[in-house]
Amino acid sequence: MNPQQAYDELVQRSKELFTVQSISALTGWDQQVNMPPKGVTHRAEMLAYLAQLIHEKATDPRLGELLSTAEQGRWEVGPAANLREWRRAYDQEIRLPTELVRRRAELTAKGNQIWQEARANNDFAAFAPALDDLIALSREMADHLGWQAERYDALLDLYEPGLTTAQCDTLFSELRQAIVPLLQKIVASPIQADPHLFRGADLPIEGQRELGVMITRALGFDYEAGRLDVSTHPFTSGTCAQDIRLTTRYDPQQPFQSLMGTIHEAGHGMYDQGIALEHEGTPLGATVSLGIHESQSRFFENNIGRNSAFWSYWFPRFRQTFVGITDHVGFDDFYLRLNHVTPSLIRVEADEVTYGLHIMVRFEIERDLFRGAIRPADLPAVWNAKYQEHLGIVPPTDREGVLQDIHWSWAYFGYFPTYALGSVYAAQLEAALRRDVSDLDDQLAAGEFAAPLKWMRERIHRPGSLYLPADLIEHATGKRPTADDYIAYVTRKYGELYQI
Amino acid sequence: MNPQQAYDELVQRSKELFTVQSISALTGWDQQVNMPPKGVTHRAEMLAYLAQLIHEKATDPRLGELLSTAEQGRWEVGPAANLREWRRAYDQEIRLPTELVRRRAELTAKGNQIWQEARANNDFAAFAPALDDLIALSREMADHLGWQAERYDALLDLYEPGLTTAQCDTLFSELRQAIVPLLQKIVASPIQADPHLFRGADLPIEGQRELGVMITRALGFDYEAGRLDVSTHPFTSGTCAQDIRLTTRYDPQQPFQSLMGTIHEAGHGMYDQGIALEHEGTPLGATVSLGIHESQSRFFENNIGRNSAFWSYWFPRFRQTFVGITDHVGFDDFYLRLNHVTPSLIRVEADEVTYGLHIMVRFEIERDLFRGAIRPADLPAVWNAKYQEHLGIVPPTDREGVLQDIHWSWAYFGYFPTYALGSVYAAQLEAALRRDVSDLDDQLAAGEFAAPLKWMRERIHRPGSLYLPADLIEHATGKRPTADDYIAYVTRKYGELYQI
Repeated sequence: MNPQQAYDELVQRSKELFTVQSISALTGWDQQVNMPPKGVTHRAEMLAYLAQLIHEKATDPRLGELLSTAEQGRWEVGPAANLREWRRAYDQEIRLPTELVRRRAELTAKGNQIWQEARANNDFAAFAPALDDLIALSREMADHLGWQAERYDALLDLYEPGLTTAQCDTLFSELRQAIVPLLQKIVASPIQADPHLFRGADLPIEGQRELGVMITRALGFDYEAGRLDVSTHPFTSGTCAQDIRLTTRYDPQQPFQSLMGTIHEAGHGMYDQGIALEHEGTPLGATVSLGIHESQSRFFENNIGRNSAFWSYWFPRFRQTFVGITDHVGFDDFYLRLNHVTPSLIRVEADEVTYGLHIMVRFEIERDLFRGAIRPADLPAVWNAKYQEHLGIVPPTDREGVLQDIHWSWAYFGYFPTYALGSVYAAQLEAALRRDVSDLDDQLAAGEFAAPLKWMRERIHRPGSLYLPADLIEHATGKRPTADDYIAYVTRKYGELYQI
Repeated sequence: MNPQQAYDELVQRSKELFTVQSISALTGWDQQVNMPPKGVTHRAEMLAYLAQLIHEKATDPRLGELLSTAEQGRWEVGPAANLREWRRAYDQEIRLPTELVRRRAELTAKGNQIWQEARANNDFAAFAPALDDLIALSREMADHLGWQAERYDALLDLYEPGLTTAQCDTLFSELRQAIVPLLQKIVASPIQADPHLFRGADLPIEGQRELGVMITRALGFDYEAGRLDVSTHPFTSGTCAQDIRLTTRYDPQQPFQSLMGTIHEAGHGMYDQGIALEHEGTPLGATVSLGIHESQSRFFENNIGRNSAFWSYWFPRFRQTFVGITDHVGFDDFYLRLNHVTPSLIRVEADEVTYGLHIMVRFEIERDLFRGAIRPADLPAVWNAKYQEHLGIVPPTDREGVLQDIHWSWAYFGYFPTYALGSVYAAQLEAALRRDVSDLDDQLAAGEFAAPLKWMRERIHRPGSLYLPADLIEHATGKRPTADDYIAYVTRKYGELYQI
């Protein structure tokens, strides 16, 4: 067998694995969106069967042989990128002993259940021993995966290939220095949004849905290749680029929850829809990382979706949709409420200025846990001290503090930083986009929405996993990833809004 | 390995196969109910992968070894039934050469496409050559499967284990002798329903849905273990007894389409929900045949759902749901419309009196095709002559005649008779139920709906595949399957209704 033959078989195996993964994704999507409650036991068996099948295919020793043979060849950048990603995935899979993978499944299932109860009972102590086990397990995982500077790097790399603790330290340090003083000025500003603008209102869900579909369709989400449903926790999934599923949730008094949530998920969905179809089923036709994915959702949600010109077009349509209910709301109040900035306790409800601080707290805690500098039992105190220091508020309960996120119960250590990277990448991409499309705001105000997606399609979506995330950003913007554009963006935007 | 060990491994393999089948069922359900149009190409790959996986598992030579070993044991009736059904399924699978299975997939995919075009163009001649191929293929299949009296028996047995051409001949002969004269009297009766009772009305879909859910919940369909959606062609599917999915379709001017369709599918769904959970994944915990399945859908749709006492309870609720729209409709007109009998061209729209005649035409044609007594080219003429003879009407086009059903394009020869068996079984079961529950009509009129499902649970649902279909009917009713009860039922009911 020569390298080309090995490569061809790898393509075929990659596509088959993709097919099984898409079956698994559909089975999981249906569980969140459609499954009747009593179906849960059998559903777990269906998902476990598929997970096992995927694991067998991903660790098939034949893949190792094919990779070694194919890697002998001389390849163009495209096939070389496929080989790079296949190698990364294969090594990650086989470096973890089967026994550890099984133990992880058990510990996370158990840990998630304990966390749910601990959160409901506001009882961190009940979760601490499980958290201890989950961290120990993740240390083991990191050691099997391998690392150089420090152990936590191995976990970061799982979610954002190439990302290191040192890079995160730099990033969050820059963010802190800029955002903490900005936030203090915003808090002190006499200009403040009315947080109760829609309280007591009854904005029909059907109208909220129609508006969300109208806006996301205008931005470029293809509803012939996707759909929008309801779930408790909004997410984006699907079976392939031609079948992408967004979910959202509706509250009659909080139109921004569904609207901005729908735009956020549509940002993910447009990325999923935008890969190179001819490469689908291989890394070249797959999204590259969580950070880049989040850059797309945040770009459309925040950089476009909270933009003044954008809403100068949509606001009349918003009022029209809810005629008789929102007639008293003027554009300025609406826009200020949409961009309301305030120190808050709950990450998923945070605005685009404070969001990075929420992530910073989690990053620092994870980093210090894996350095052994703090122990799980210290977490409530450490958490509250950091919220006090950076956001100026302290959670009254652990439920609203250290117990709020599901991630640690699943042993998703190293995941949080990708959220902050998303905002940073988004701002850097927006700055580059505006250099190419200088009249962007005029276009948005005129109801022309094609430019942002067209630009992202070329620079971010179509390349798939051709480049590592940081290289992709550099190709798209001409610069290595930097917090500069994000800091400039929020400083300018919120400086104007709050007249600082 | 002893017989018990072999049996235990068969149970485990049966359950794993069930899991994969349920994944495939969900993937197919989603395609009909949720999939955006562009997802179709990848969906075909997902389904083909699963079909291949199921085929591999179902034909694994290991199953043959395990069956041979287990069959050496002495077994109670339960395990013996499992072994009987596993053997039947395994032999059916391995008797068909892989080459033939592949050819069937190709011919049916092609045949279905040609049929769709031929039907759209009202051009039977375009479909005839494909039909020829599909029949030749099915003859081959029958010969591989094996048969004694005649070839068509092998195909009937695929859908209703144990059913023979001779039995069908007897059944349809009895039906014809009773139904054709009954129909002539009905047509001649001065009493006739107003076919336009709801024409021009706009019965809100939400109300139709609520009513359908209310009625089927009252009958016993468990919506904690199921759901109701919309699809072009109504069907019942699901992943397990605890997750059963009904679909229906709505027409603002035809409330009975969605209502009776929903009750029909709920009849299927209650059977699916009613199997013995402890045996799920093996034949003892699986529905036994298409005929028995159809007996449940038709029993709840017709024997209960078109019953006068039943509607004396529901009619006020129907009017209340559509208040202001149906106020002019009285109970007698409503009930007569619900049970409107008329010779018609389209099987799926036929009433419960003429339905069997539609099936009889198809049975006789299939029987004669497989005897070589007629050829595909003869079908339009044969079809129209039979409709003239038995129903007194002739389709003006083949689209409304011989081209109306999808079944032949999929090579589903031998399937149609199970529809008629459903009605016959349902009437036999109703007669037996009324012997046990003498005040059934009083209960229905009083809004007490527990008795029918409770009776079916014990007699039909819980046994799963313990007995072959005809034996199950005998156990439940004390008689071998017979058309007598069906003939008595329609003769009495429609004799009264049409004052014959």
